[in-house]
Amino acid sequence: MTLTIVPPREEITLSSWAQNVERSALQEMLALTAQPDIISFALGLPAAELFPRDHYADAVRSVLTADDRALQYGPPCQPLKKHVQELMQKRGVTCRMNQIFLTTGAQQGLSLMARVLLNPGSQVLFEEMSYPGFQQVILPFKPQILTVPTDLDTGMDVNAVAEILESGARPAFIYTVTDGHNPLGVGMSVAKRRQLVELARHYQVPIVEDDAYGLIYYGENSVAPMRALDERWVCYVGSFSKILAPALRVGWLVVPEELMLSLSVVKESSDIDTATLAQRAIVAYLDAGHHEQHLQRVRREYRTRRDAMVDALDRHLPKGTVWNTPSSGFFLWVELPESVNASELLKLAVMEERVAFIPGNAFGLNGSVPGSNCMRLNFSHHRLDLIEEGIARLGRAVKKSLANNPPRRWAWEAAKTNGEKNLKTKIV
Amino acid sequence: MTLTIVPPREEITLSSWAQNVERSALQEMLALTAQPDIISFALGLPAAELFPRDHYADAVRSVLTADDRALQYGPPCQPLKKHVQELMQKRGVTCRMNQIFLTTGAQQGLSLMARVLLNPGSQVLFEEMSYPGFQQVILPFKPQILTVPTDLDTGMDVNAVAEILESGARPAFIYTVTDGHNPLGVGMSVAKRRQLVELARHYQVPIVEDDAYGLIYYGENSVAPMRALDERWVCYVGSFSKILAPALRVGWLVVPEELMLSLSVVKESSDIDTATLAQRAIVAYLDAGHHEQHLQRVRREYRTRRDAMVDALDRHLPKGTVWNTPSSGFFLWVELPESVNASELLKLAVMEERVAFIPGNAFGLNGSVPGSNCMRLNFSHHRLDLIEEGIARLGRAVKKSLANNPPRRWAWEAAKTNGEKNLKTKIV
Repeated sequence: MTLTIVPPREEITLSSWAQNVERSALQEMLALTAQPDIISFALGLPAAELFPRDHYADAVRSVLTADDRALQYGPPCQPLKKHVQELMQKRGVTCRMNQIFLTTGAQQGLSLMARVLLNPGSQVLFEEMSYPGFQQVILPFKPQILTVPTDLDTGMDVNAVAEILESGARPAFIYTVTDGHNPLGVGMSVAKRRQLVELARHYQVPIVEDDAYGLIYYGENSVAPMRALDERWVCYVGSFSKILAPALRVGWLVVPEELMLSLSVVKESSDIDTATLAQRAIVAYLDAGHHEQHLQRVRREYRTRRDAMVDALDRHLPKGTVWNTPSSGFFLWVELPESVNASELLKLAVMEERVAFIPGNAFGLNGSVPGSNCMRLNFSHHRLDLIEEGIARLGRAVKKSLANNPPRRWAWEAAKTNGEKNLKTKIV
Repeated sequence: MTLTIVPPREEITLSSWAQNVERSALQEMLALTAQPDIISFALGLPAAELFPRDHYADAVRSVLTADDRALQYGPPCQPLKKHVQELMQKRGVTCRMNQIFLTTGAQQGLSLMARVLLNPGSQVLFEEMSYPGFQQVILPFKPQILTVPTDLDTGMDVNAVAEILESGARPAFIYTVTDGHNPLGVGMSVAKRRQLVELARHYQVPIVEDDAYGLIYYGENSVAPMRALDERWVCYVGSFSKILAPALRVGWLVVPEELMLSLSVVKESSDIDTATLAQRAIVAYLDAGHHEQHLQRVRREYRTRRDAMVDALDRHLPKGTVWNTPSSGFFLWVELPESVNASELLKLAVMEERVAFIPGNAFGLNGSVPGSNCMRLNFSHHRLDLIEEGIARLGRAVKKSLANNPPRRWAWEAAKTNGEKNLKTKIV
C-alpha cells in the first residue's frame, strides 16, 4: 500500500442538507429557559404530575411477569391496534385493523408519511404558521412549498387551497393540524373540514391530518377529524404522547391499506419496530380500565389551566393584545400590538423577567414576517400559581417593551432581522 | 367551488422509491416461519428466557416512583451517556461524553448516519454480503454502490477497498460489521482493522462501524473495534438490544463532535427523542450493578449454543458442507455443496421439515449470485434441544435436496431466478 500526502480537509464531509443545518438564535435562547428560575410557556409539554405513574409501573410489571417476549423484537402488537381502533371510534372515526400502522410517536408518523409520499422537489401544501417539527421532516426533500393563511376562528384558509389546486398545483399532500392547531390553537370549522376533504377527493391530493391533540378537547364533545369523512384521501396521525405519556414514544397512523407495505419497509429501516415493551405495557394499562378516567382528568385540568391563563392575560397584558380560547390542545396564540417584535421581546422576557414563550415567526417560513408580533403560549404544563406568576411577568415584559421602543422602529427592525430560512421556497 | 369530472386514478401516489417496494418471496416464506411447529434459525433474536425481566421491572418501578419527568419529553439522559462511556471503555474505546449520541436502537443509528452523510446518488462502499437493514437504509438515496468480498477467516477484503479508493472512488462512507459480522459471523483481523483505518485517514473517507454484537464475544477477551484506533474517521454504532433487550429500542453512536448538531436535527425530525423512560430505566438497571453478571451469563450461554450448533452440523449435514465458528455475535455461515440453491432449499425445509434459515443471497446485491448455496443460521435464540432437533431437520432437508436434484439443473435454476434487486447498481 503506497500512500501519498494527505490533503488538509480533515473533517467528515456532511450531506449537502446537513451542511446547512445551523443552531438558530431561538434554539440558543430556549436552551437558556431550562434554568429552574425561568417559567417557560415555550414547549408543548404535558403536565408531568398528571402522568399515571403507578398504573403504568403496574402495567410494565404485569407484562414482564407474564411473558419474556415483552423484551424481544416483535411484530406490531395486535391488541394495541385493537385499542387504537377503539380510541379512533371515540374520535368519531371508524377504521379497520389493517389500516392502523403503529409508530414511534406521531413525529415518526409524519416522518414516515413524508418518506412514502415525497420525491425530491415535490410540492407540499400547508399553512403559513405550522408545526416546525413537520417543516423539519420535509426540508431534506428540498420541497416546493405552497402555503395558505389560517383564520384564527375557523382554521386553514380552504378557499386559498382551492385556488392553488385550481391553478394547477398538485402537491404530494396537504398537511394540517385539524384540532388544537399547533401553533395557533384553533380548531377547523366543520364546513372547512368538509370542503377540504372534497378538494382532496376531487384533485386526488391526500391530506396528512395531524391529530396529536384531538382527544384533548375542552367542550362537551370533540368534532370528528377529517378522517371520519374520507378513508381514501385522509391519512391520520395519532399519538399516545398527550393522552398518556410522551416518554413511551408510541403513536399510530390510519391510512389506506395500499400504504402499509411501503410504511413497513421505511419503518423497519428507521428503527426496526416500535418498542415492544411499551406497546404491551400500554395494552396492559388500557386493559386495566383507568384510561377514560385519566383522559377526563387531564381534560378537566388542562381546561382549568387554559381558563386561568386567559384570565391572567386579561389582567396582565396591555390593551391592544388579543388571544384565542382554544377548544382543544395545549396552545394559546397571542397577538401583541404590531409594534412589538416577539423575538426581541423574548430576550427581554428571559433576561429581565425570567419567563419564556415561542415567538410567532418561529412557526413561519420566510420574508413576509407573519407572526413576528405574536407568541405561542403553552398552558398545559404549569400549575395554576406558576401560570399566574408567569403571565404577570410576561405582562411586565410586554409593557417594558412597549415603553422602551417607539412603534415605527420596532416594525423596521422586525423586517430587517427576519432573513429567509434555509432551503425553503415560498411560491404562493 | 366548481368541481369538474373526477379522473379515474383513485389511489394516493407514492414516492418513486415507495412505488418500487415489493414484498419479496423471502419475506413471504419467512412470514410462514412464525408458525409454532417451525424451528426458525432465520432471525437475529436474543434468547428471550435470558432477559433480566425482574431486574428491569424493578428499574422501571424505581424511576417511575422517583421522578414524574421519567414519563415526560426530555433531553438525552447524561447518566446514560456516562454508562455508555463505561461500556465503550470495556470495548477498548476511550471517548468523550460529547461524542456520544443516543438513538432509538442501532438501526436508527445507521439511518441517522446515512441521512447526515449521503446525498442522492452518493457512492457507498460495503461488502458483497452485508446486513439487509443497512441496505434498506441507503436504497432511498439511489446510491452508487461499491462492493468488496469478505474473507470468512479475516473479514472484509481491505486490499480491494484500497484498490477502489486508489482508482479514484470517494464513497461518502465505508460500512462494515467488525465483530460478529452479519451475516458471515467473522471478526475482522487486527491487521485489517489497522489497514482500513489507515485508508480512511489517507483518503478522508469515514467508516461507519456497526458494532451491535461487539460485547457478545466468546473468547477470553474481545478485540477492540476500529473506533479504538481513530476518533476522527470512525463513526461507531452501538446498541443495548443484544446486551440487554431489543424491546427497549436504545442504542448509541460515537462520532466526531462536528456531527452532533446535524444528528440532533435529523433525530428530532425522526422521533423527537429516544424514549426517556427507557433511557432512565436502563440507567437504574445498570446502576443496580447486575449487568456485568448478565453479560457473562449470556456470553456463556450463547457460546454453549454456538458449540452445540457446530456439533450438530458436524453430525447431521452431508459432506461438502462447511461452516465457521464465530468468535462473536449471533450467526453461523454455512456453505452447502455448490449445486444446492439455498432459496429452493428453504421452501423444502419449511414445507417438509419445518425448519427455517435465511438463504445467503438475501444478503447480497445482484446478478453474480454470491451466497446462493449458503445460509445464515442464528444460534442465539433457541434452547439446546431445539438446536439439535432443528439441525437434524435441516440435515434431512439438505440430503433430500441433493438426492432429488442433479447438480447442473440446480445451478441453472439459481441463475434464472436471481433477478437484479431494485435500485441497486453494483459497479465493482
